[in-house]
Amino acid sequence: MTEQTYTYKVAMSCSGCSGAVDRVLKKTAGVSSYDISLEKQTVVVKSSLSQQEVLDVIKKTGKAAEVA
Amino acid sequence: MTEQTYTYKVAMSCSGCSGAVDRVLKKTAGVSSYDISLEKQTVVVKSSLSQQEVLDVIKKTGKAAEVA
Repeated sequence: MTEQTYTYKVAMSCSGCSGAVDRVLKKTAGVSSYDISLEKQTVVVKSSLSQQEVLDVIKKTGKAAEVA
Repeated sequence: MTEQTYTYKVAMSCSGCSGAVDRVLKKTAGVSSYDISLEKQTVVVKSSLSQQEVLDVIKKTGKAAEVA
């Protein structure tokens, strides 16, 4: 399965916010790795899912998110 | 449709956390009203859904949540 790396801008205000994104990505099938930066407000995801599918997963957390 | 009121304990550290729970509940069909307290770490929901269904919705945010 081909994997791609996507970068998203995600509004995260504290470690509770970034932790929530972490917990949701952790249990998402098709996401092989990710890097969450509270400082840069970014989430970089390596996944076999599409860019939109990963965005939808992140948005499930209720955070404002968009493709960076 | 009969509505019930449920109280949940939800780990929220900042207004970004509580805002995320707010955005998710706002777009959930079957939830008629809710009250989120960052101070008390509680979410009170009035809904026609079951207690478990509402808990699952809250958990989608990635927050640690349980029935209070």
